[in-house]
Amino acid sequence: MVREIRPSDNAPRWKRAAYSVIFEADTPAGRRFDIALFWTILLSVLVVMLESVQTINQQYGPYLRVVEWFFTALFALEYLARLVVVRRPLAYALSPLGIVDFLSIVPALAALVLSGSRYLLIIRTLRLLRVFRIFKLGHFVGEGEFIVTALHASRFKIMVFLSAVLTLVVVVGALMYVVEGGQNGFTSIPKSIYWAVVTITTVGYGDISPHTVLGQGLASVLMILGYAIIAVPTGIVTAQMAASRSTPTYKQVICHVCQATDHRPDAEFCWRCGEKL
Amino acid sequence: MVREIRPSDNAPRWKRAAYSVIFEADTPAGRRFDIALFWTILLSVLVVMLESVQTINQQYGPYLRVVEWFFTALFALEYLARLVVVRRPLAYALSPLGIVDFLSIVPALAALVLSGSRYLLIIRTLRLLRVFRIFKLGHFVGEGEFIVTALHASRFKIMVFLSAVLTLVVVVGALMYVVEGGQNGFTSIPKSIYWAVVTITTVGYGDISPHTVLGQGLASVLMILGYAIIAVPTGIVTAQMAASRSTPTYKQVICHVCQATDHRPDAEFCWRCGEKL
Amino acid sequence: MVREIRPSDNAPRWKRAAYSVIFEADTPAGRRFDIALFWTILLSVLVVMLESVQTINQQYGPYLRVVEWFFTALFALEYLARLVVVRRPLAYALSPLGIVDFLSIVPALAALVLSGSRYLLIIRTLRLLRVFRIFKLGHFVGEGEFIVTALHASRFKIMVFLSAVLTLVVVVGALMYVVEGGQNGFTSIPKSIYWAVVTITTVGYGDISPHTVLGQGLASVLMILGYAIIAVPTGIVTAQMAASRSTPTYKQVICHVCQATDHRPDAEFCWRCGEKL
Amino acid sequence: MVREIRPSDNAPRWKRAAYSVIFEADTPAGRRFDIALFWTILLSVLVVMLESVQTINQQYGPYLRVVEWFFTALFALEYLARLVVVRRPLAYALSPLGIVDFLSIVPALAALVLSGSRYLLIIRTLRLLRVFRIFKLGHFVGEGEFIVTALHASRFKIMVFLSAVLTLVVVVGALMYVVEGGQNGFTSIPKSIYWAVVTITTVGYGDISPHTVLGQGLASVLMILGYAIIAVPTGIVTAQMAASRSTPTYKQVICHVCQATDHRPDAEFCWRCGEKL
Repeated sequence: MVREIRPSDNAPRWKRAAYSVIFEADTPAGRRFDIALFWTILLSVLVVMLESVQTINQQYGPYLRVVEWFFTALFALEYLARLVVVRRPLAYALSPLGIVDFLSIVPALAALVLSGSRYLLIIRTLRLLRVFRIFKLGHFVGEGEFIVTALHASRFKIMVFLSAVLTLVVVVGALMYVVEGGQNGFTSIPKSIYWAVVTITTVGYGDISPHTVLGQGLASVLMILGYAIIAVPTGIVTAQMAASRSTPTYKQVICHVCQATDHRPDAEFCWRCGEKL
Repeated sequence: MVREIRPSDNAPRWKRAAYSVIFEADTPAGRRFDIALFWTILLSVLVVMLESVQTINQQYGPYLRVVEWFFTALFALEYLARLVVVRRPLAYALSPLGIVDFLSIVPALAALVLSGSRYLLIIRTLRLLRVFRIFKLGHFVGEGEFIVTALHASRFKIMVFLSAVLTLVVVVGALMYVVEGGQNGFTSIPKSIYWAVVTITTVGYGDISPHTVLGQGLASVLMILGYAIIAVPTGIVTAQMAASRSTPTYKQVICHVCQATDHRPDAEFCWRCGEKL
Repeated sequence: MVREIRPSDNAPRWKRAAYSVIFEADTPAGRRFDIALFWTILLSVLVVMLESVQTINQQYGPYLRVVEWFFTALFALEYLARLVVVRRPLAYALSPLGIVDFLSIVPALAALVLSGSRYLLIIRTLRLLRVFRIFKLGHFVGEGEFIVTALHASRFKIMVFLSAVLTLVVVVGALMYVVEGGQNGFTSIPKSIYWAVVTITTVGYGDISPHTVLGQGLASVLMILGYAIIAVPTGIVTAQMAASRSTPTYKQVICHVCQATDHRPDAEFCWRCGEKL
Repeated sequence: MVREIRPSDNAPRWKRAAYSVIFEADTPAGRRFDIALFWTILLSVLVVMLESVQTINQQYGPYLRVVEWFFTALFALEYLARLVVVRRPLAYALSPLGIVDFLSIVPALAALVLSGSRYLLIIRTLRLLRVFRIFKLGHFVGEGEFIVTALHASRFKIMVFLSAVLTLVVVVGALMYVVEGGQNGFTSIPKSIYWAVVTITTVGYGDISPHTVLGQGLASVLMILGYAIIAVPTGIVTAQMAASRSTPTYKQVICHVCQATDHRPDAEFCWRCGEKL
C-alpha cells in the first residue's frame, strides 16, 4: 500500500538530488539538512511554549510572534519544496508524514481567525519523529518496530479489553450517579463516567469523590477491579512480546511441488511432500 | 449446562424464521435486525445520559422522557418477541443475556415509584455486548475467549491474592484509625479501610490523607507495598497467558533414516532427508 | 524448623480428641468448630468496626462493648484451650499462628489503660486465614503456595529494587525540599520524602504538590521514572512465575553409585553413570 | 574502561594495607571499616533530615550543626585518605563512586555561601550503595546485576517508548491548553504538559484538573491510553527477564539404542536405557 514518492530515474537530475537531501539522510548534505530541521523544530516548539506563558508573553510577545512567523514561513517553504520534489505530490500530501507536515503550518493561518489555535503549532513535535533517523538508529527503528508489531498483533485483544472497560465504566458511572444522588460532584451521568475513568485507571484526581457510605463501597470495588484488570493489557502485551522473541522463524520458501511454506530454517526438504526445496 | 433455546425443527416455520432474525446474524435480515438494535441501544443510552445533565433536562426534559418511553416500549416488545420465539422461554429468561434484556426494561417501570432508578436504564449498555457479532468478529470472539480463559484459569490465584489484599486493607485501615486518632478524615474504621483501598490501589484521591508523622510513615509503607504487589496479579495473568500460547510446535517423531527430530506437527516427510515419516 | 505441637500418641485420649477438633478440620466436629470460629471472627470484627463509627457508637456503644467483651472472653477461652491441648504450649505460643491468636485478645486488656487500642482487636481478621481451610481449598492452598513461592524466590531481586527506590526517594525528597524552599507543603525533608513516595508509587494524593517550575519539572521526571520502573517488580515476579510453570520437575532421587540428582521425571537410569535408579 | 586504582605490588606496604582496609571488605579490618562507615553515613543522613524539621531545628539547631560539621570533616578526611591510597588519584576522583564521595562533602562548603544547599548533603545516601557489600550479598550483587542487565538490554526499547510518551504528552498538553482556554490551572503550555505527565503516569494529584466537558473527554482518553501503555515498558522488561532465564536445558543427542532424546545438558548416559551416549 506504500506508494512510491521517490522521483523516477528519468526525472531531472536536480530533482533527484533535492529529493535525496530533503527526504533522505544517507548523504552528508541529507544529514546536515535533517540536523538543521531537527533544531529548527525544537526551537519553534520552544517558542510556541514560551508564548503561552503569560509573564513571558507580556514582555516579549511581539518578538516571539515574529520568530514564530519566521519558523512558519520556513516550514511552509520546506513543505512546498517537498511537494515539488516528490514523484506524486498527492501521495505525499496524503501520507501520514505529509499530513503532519501540513498540520505544522496550518494553525498559524487559522490563528488569523481564531487566536488560540496558534498554540496547535506544537503539533510540530510530531515532526521530530521524522528526523529521528539522524541519530544512530539502526537500533531504534528495529526496537520501535518490535513494539509496534507487538501492539499490532495484540490489537484485537486490546480492543476487546477496552470495550469491556468502557462498558464497565458507563454502567458504574450511572450507578454512582444514582447512589450519590447527583451530589458531591456526581452532577450528571457523563460526569460520573468521567469519575469512573479517573478511578479505574487509578489516576484519582480527587476533584470528584464519593461521600456516601454506599458510594465509597462501590468505589472500593471499582478500584480493586481496576487494580486487578491492569493485569490484562499487561499480560496481553507481555505474552505477545515474549512470544515474538521465542518464535522459531520459518524459512520463507515455497515448495514448488505442493506450495507448502513455513519450513524449518534449516530444512532441505519440504515437510509436506518430501520434495527437495 | 447451556440449554438449547433454538426452536426445534418441527416448530412452525414463522417461529424458526423469526428466531433466526432476532437471535442470529447469519442471514441478511438477521444482520439488519442486529444493526438496527445496535443503533437503538446506543441512542437510548445517549438519551438517558443527556437526561441526567441538568441544563439539558431543564430545557428538553419532557421530550427526552417521551423518547425514553418510546425506546423502553420498543425493548419491551423485543423482549416479548424473544420470549415467544424461543423453544424454552424460561431458559432464555434466566440466561445471562435474558436477564440483561429484562433489566434493560424494568428500571423504567421502577421509576414510576422511585424516580432516580430511571437512570439504571443505562444497563442497556451491556446489551451492546450481544450485538458485537454484527462486526466482523471472528477475531474478537476468539480473542475475548483467550482473555476470559486466562482469567478463568487464574481465578483461584486471583482470589487468594484478593483475600490477602482485603485482610491487609482491613488491618492497616484500623491501624491508621488508631494512629490518626479519628482525625484528618479517618473518622471511623470503615472510612479508614476505604482510605486504605484508595491508597493500596494507587488511586489516591487525596480526600482523606494522613497528617501525623507516624500516619505518613505507615502510609508510605502501604504505598510501596501496593506498588510492589501490583506485580502479583500481573504476574499471574501474564504467566497464564504466556503458557496458553506456548504449545508444543514440533512432532516428536524420529526419522528412521536420518534420525532427525523436531518435525512440524503436521509434517508427513522428514525435513532433513525427505523420507516418509 | 516446624516443631510438632500435635499431642503424642500416648497422650490422654480426651486431649487427642480435643486437638483434632480445635486444630484440624478433617472430622465433622473439627469442621463444625472451624465454621463456628469463622463466623465468630467475622462478627467480632464487624462489632469493632461498628463501634468506631461515631453515630452508631453514641446510640449502641454500651451494647456493642458488652458484645465485644463477650467475644474477647470467647477467644481467651479458646486460646487457653489451645494451650492446654497442644504437646508443647510454648512452641504453639511462639508460632506465627499462636502469636496472632494471642494478639486477638490482648488489645481488649490494653484498652483498660489506653482506650484507643481497643480497635486493634481488628487484628482478628488475620485469624480468618487460619480457618480458610474450611472452604474447599485444596486449590487455594496450592495457588497460595505458588504465589508465596514465586515471591520468595524473587525476594533478593525485590529487596535490591526496594533499596534503589528508597535511595531515589530520599535523594529526590531532599532535592525537592531545597528546590521548593520549604514552601508548598515541602516543610521538611521527611515530609518531602513522604511526597516522593506518594509520587513514585503513582498514588498522588495531591495534599502536597510542587508549585515552582523547577519543582514541577523534577516531579515530572520522578513520575515518568516511577511509571517506567513499575516494570521492574512486575518483570521480576512475572518471569519467576512463568519460569516456575515451565521448569521441568526433576525426580528427587539420588543415584546410589554416583550421587547424581535431578533426573528426568521418567528416568529409569542415572544420567551420569548409567546405573539403574 | 575500568581503570585500575588498586596500588601496584611494589607500592609501599602501608599503602597496600590501607587500601585493603578502606576499599575492600575481605579482611576483618576492612569489614569493620565498612560497618563503621555504614553507621556513620546513616547517622549523618539522619542529622541532615532532623535539621530540616523546623521544630527540631529551633530547639537543637546549633548542636545538630556541630554534629553535621563533625561528620563532614570525617568524610573529608576519608576522601583524602582514599585519594592518597589509590594508585591513580584522578581515576578514582572521576569514577562514579569517587564523584559521589566528593559530592558528599562539597554541599557543606557551598552552604557557607548558599544556606539551603546544606541539605544536599543527603546525597550521602548514595554512599550506602558502596557499603552494601558488608551484608551477605553474594546474592544481592547477582540479583542487582540481573536487573541492571535486563534494563540495559531493553534500553533502546525503553528510549523509544519514552520518546513516544514525551511526544504524546507535549501534544496533548498543548491541546488541553487550547481546550480549557488557559483556565482551571492550565495557565500555560508547560503547565499543561506537567498536567499531562501527572495524568498519563496515573499519579493524578488533582492540583490541576479539567473542568470543561471537552477537556474531561480528552483527559479520559489520555487516562485510558496511559492505563493501556503501562503495558509496554512492563512487557519489554518482563520479556527480557523471561528470555534471560530460559536457557536450553536438554542435550539434543539421540540414544543409539533406545533413541531417547532430551537428555540433561551434561548427561553422559541415556536416562531411559542407561547406555553410554
